[in-house]
Amino acid sequence: MEELLDSPLRVHGALHESGYGGSERERQILARLQAMGMETLVVSEAELASASDTEQPQGIVAIARMPEHSLVELPDPERGRWLVLDAIQDPGNLGTIIRTAAAMGVSAVLALRGTVDVWNSKVVRSSMGASFRMPLVPLTVAELQSFLSDRGIPLWAADAGGEPVQQKSAPRRLALVVGNEGAGVSAEVMQLVQRRVAIPMDSAVESLNVAVATGILLYMLQS
Amino acid sequence: MEELLDSPLRVHGALHESGYGGSERERQILARLQAMGMETLVVSEAELASASDTEQPQGIVAIARMPEHSLVELPDPERGRWLVLDAIQDPGNLGTIIRTAAAMGVSAVLALRGTVDVWNSKVVRSSMGASFRMPLVPLTVAELQSFLSDRGIPLWAADAGGEPVQQKSAPRRLALVVGNEGAGVSAEVMQLVQRRVAIPMDSAVESLNVAVATGILLYMLQS
Repeated sequence: MEELLDSPLRVHGALHESGYGGSERERQILARLQAMGMETLVVSEAELASASDTEQPQGIVAIARMPEHSLVELPDPERGRWLVLDAIQDPGNLGTIIRTAAAMGVSAVLALRGTVDVWNSKVVRSSMGASFRMPLVPLTVAELQSFLSDRGIPLWAADAGGEPVQQKSAPRRLALVVGNEGAGVSAEVMQLVQRRVAIPMDSAVESLNVAVATGILLYMLQS
Repeated sequence: MEELLDSPLRVHGALHESGYGGSERERQILARLQAMGMETLVVSEAELASASDTEQPQGIVAIARMPEHSLVELPDPERGRWLVLDAIQDPGNLGTIIRTAAAMGVSAVLALRGTVDVWNSKVVRSSMGASFRMPLVPLTVAELQSFLSDRGIPLWAADAGGEPVQQKSAPRRLALVVGNEGAGVSAEVMQLVQRRVAIPMDSAVESLNVAVATGILLYMLQS
């Protein structure tokens, strides 16, 4: 709720239990909603539970419009990072990746077909509020290709067979693609890639979790 | 199953469904169990489901003894990394951290009180087999203190208020402590710490997921 209220998203209303507002933090959230002239509805615990899909809802649920970002409207900074996701399937991984991308100054997250719905509720929760601020754009491989070539942004791929990633080795503008938890970056997307980078690791371990790998690569390749 | 069979753990037996063994990969697993003289029992789908705690069991369940490692028996390499966990609560995070530690060449994972059970089944699954090879040692703060001082291993902490982490800045032998998802490293443990290191990030983001942060720090501080 706090992350939503701090974000640019438009909140349309909220439901909360009658007991909500007992702590200072909860009182502040209700006061902020009231100051915005927001309609809030007091509901029973059972009604709140039916409106929420978590096992332990926090006593309040808000409604906001999912933002839609088009590729052409995305900012075009001189130094920038774009993160491309090729069929990331686990919602917890995707949310953690969005949170990590926000922390690492990524301009937008571009989600290719086969990636779990970016507005899946588990994705939103795992992103810890980053989904409310980070532009998330579903797109096709053809749209990705046009976007990169129109803007002159090179594409690098996370790939175990690539060269070891070097700090400060990346160009001012760069898109990084990370692939599916099992299969990695698809052959179709690999055709758009200029360079493949790997995270050197102990040979007994097959791979890193995709969110951890994305974090290390985005950190090493910062602009 | 494959990770377990590849590990040093002693397998005591296995249950599988009658349909298991249809694929080449499954056939190989059964052949390996047979070659080890292992007792395997064919059970019904319902029986297998009751022996497994995943929603979609993979048709086979094995029994192995949880390894017990004592602090004094841990290897004592001249160059080494030890990872200390201070009250990590989410099983998925813990499993991912163990997997990451294995990839980054950590010698042992030391789990302080308040950390979720290292043999929780969700931890084991998230570790992708790393739990079968990485020494996992539950311990108290006093035991940690003795371990570090007996061996002369300095302790650094992951802390948002620390100095920005630098690559190749760490001593040959180093223990890194990462803290609870919400509260970070506790004051009690912080008293044992020589240096606090942070991951520089966008100011709009409060924190990274603890597994992602651990991955970046272990990568930057490699021996």
